[in-house]
Amino acid sequence: MLEGALDVAAIGNAIVDVLAHTDDDLLDRIGVVKGVMTLVDATRSEEIYGALPPAVECSGGSAANTAAGIASLGGRVAFIGKVKNDQLGGVFRHDLTSLGVHFSTAPANDGPSTARCMVMVTPDAQRTMQTYLGAAVELSPADIDPAIIAAAEITYLEGYLWDPPAAKQAMLKAADLAHEAGRKVALSLSDPFCVERHRGEFLTLIDDHVDILFANEAEITALYQCDLEAAVRQTRTKVEIAAITRGAHGSLAVCGDRVTLVDAEKIARLVDTTGAGDLYAAGFLHGLTRGRDLGECARLGGICAAEVIGHMGPRPETNLARLVADAVLLQM
Amino acid sequence: MLEGALDVAAIGNAIVDVLAHTDDDLLDRIGVVKGVMTLVDATRSEEIYGALPPAVECSGGSAANTAAGIASLGGRVAFIGKVKNDQLGGVFRHDLTSLGVHFSTAPANDGPSTARCMVMVTPDAQRTMQTYLGAAVELSPADIDPAIIAAAEITYLEGYLWDPPAAKQAMLKAADLAHEAGRKVALSLSDPFCVERHRGEFLTLIDDHVDILFANEAEITALYQCDLEAAVRQTRTKVEIAAITRGAHGSLAVCGDRVTLVDAEKIARLVDTTGAGDLYAAGFLHGLTRGRDLGECARLGGICAAEVIGHMGPRPETNLARLVADAVLLQM
Repeated sequence: MLEGALDVAAIGNAIVDVLAHTDDDLLDRIGVVKGVMTLVDATRSEEIYGALPPAVECSGGSAANTAAGIASLGGRVAFIGKVKNDQLGGVFRHDLTSLGVHFSTAPANDGPSTARCMVMVTPDAQRTMQTYLGAAVELSPADIDPAIIAAAEITYLEGYLWDPPAAKQAMLKAADLAHEAGRKVALSLSDPFCVERHRGEFLTLIDDHVDILFANEAEITALYQCDLEAAVRQTRTKVEIAAITRGAHGSLAVCGDRVTLVDAEKIARLVDTTGAGDLYAAGFLHGLTRGRDLGECARLGGICAAEVIGHMGPRPETNLARLVADAVLLQM
Repeated sequence: MLEGALDVAAIGNAIVDVLAHTDDDLLDRIGVVKGVMTLVDATRSEEIYGALPPAVECSGGSAANTAAGIASLGGRVAFIGKVKNDQLGGVFRHDLTSLGVHFSTAPANDGPSTARCMVMVTPDAQRTMQTYLGAAVELSPADIDPAIIAAAEITYLEGYLWDPPAAKQAMLKAADLAHEAGRKVALSLSDPFCVERHRGEFLTLIDDHVDILFANEAEITALYQCDLEAAVRQTRTKVEIAAITRGAHGSLAVCGDRVTLVDAEKIARLVDTTGAGDLYAAGFLHGLTRGRDLGECARLGGICAAEVIGHMGPRPETNLARLVADAVLLQM
């Protein structure tokens, strides 16, 4: 049972990541496209896994990573997503709930196993992802608990969720419920290939349902099929707030006529970019729910993203609330 | 099917590690003894897991870590141990076989799940382990493939394997087969509490079956119930070779009247001591099978141990063959 108000309800594919260091040769050999997320079926997933070196398993999933980040920042957050009642489903559940994330979506008792994403990290710290959606495709409108959506200031949806067909309806239901309750809806575009798969539907979704949009440069330009400047002009007429990340070039927050540019945080070392966008969204959303201005939101996003790219894996290894407090102290 | 000769056949509990950063307070709160390995049942295992922060899963098991290390050094190695035919069993199998380790032990199709060890790493880099043996207790003499033992120059047994009752018989069978084939038998004492649980039986096992003994200072003094000097005197009459590790003080190799002292390798950072003893054994055994003298064997052990304590997790993240080659070049 959910008690009290929430800052954010995050909805996404519930996925366990299988992280391996690889070189570019291996990507070529198994024929995968570098830097993006590709969906694979169970057979292809086994084939790729068989070609990978020893790996490490840890909980992932884009919106789930964002939920973990918000919890680590001290925010109140729920996650909605589908695992199976299997070992990796138990791992996913533990890793979220142990952070204090409310996670009450019933697991599937039969059908495909908990989703797995093979994340291949190359020496340039780029990540290439091959996802077997498994039980995540079972997420349906029945899993959207109206009490959770009504309790949350912002309902956050990942674009990847547009891939499993029933989840699409779940997202629309959640967006409707949020707006009926006078709440905001945020969307992450997730991946340029994901945008290309669903471009028309994403444009309609954004027009009709989205208040806050997260994208990186490749995604926003794929969406509007133009350069960044033109994409910024488009987006300001479509959503209330847009946050556009540009890797080492920082990010920009767009709100009506105002565009706020924020530099990237300095980092000690770049190890693995997995989760960078997810943790940026965590920091930005946490700032918004705490009434910070957009520049501060973007900076919070940058601090959280800088933490997660400094180590392997898509979730923070540091207490983000403390990290953010330290960063503010350093500025004084 | 095994083809050709092997350097080492390693026999041990097949375990997936659940690694979490914790503080000493959590250890106190859940009432676990710091620095050692404790066996827990399924209920207690769930209870402790519920109290842990987010964790990472990776393949472990003492002798399996040693096998992974030997493979990474370029040695030919087989592992014998029992997983269940479940998700974590698949993870364990992948992580060994992808290194080229021969692993043909049939998994259990029913009964308890694949073994899990919760490894709590405190800020001082110490690890405290709570192990649920699960399917590992199903290992029995029938799983010891005589062809593998006969093919291996050294059969390496972990002391932890003395805990599951049928595995004890499997170890004795393996030792007998090895000696019948004119091969050597090595044993790791594993853990001081493990030594205390089985002291009398370990003394007999060593007398009757062991040629090469691995232990740290706490284990060897627990075995002979005396100080290190006296323990060294005892051990030289019992086994052909003994390798005794002393953490930051390096290690000593004992062979008859000769005692060779080797300093510990310099390390850039100490993160997690999990796997230190296992990887020391990997380096030492690899040296032995390559005909190196005991000082070189101990140094190889030290280099491999230094790699594994520089990061989280009990298995090498670096190609050890390359690391060792670099270390030798640096000396020239």
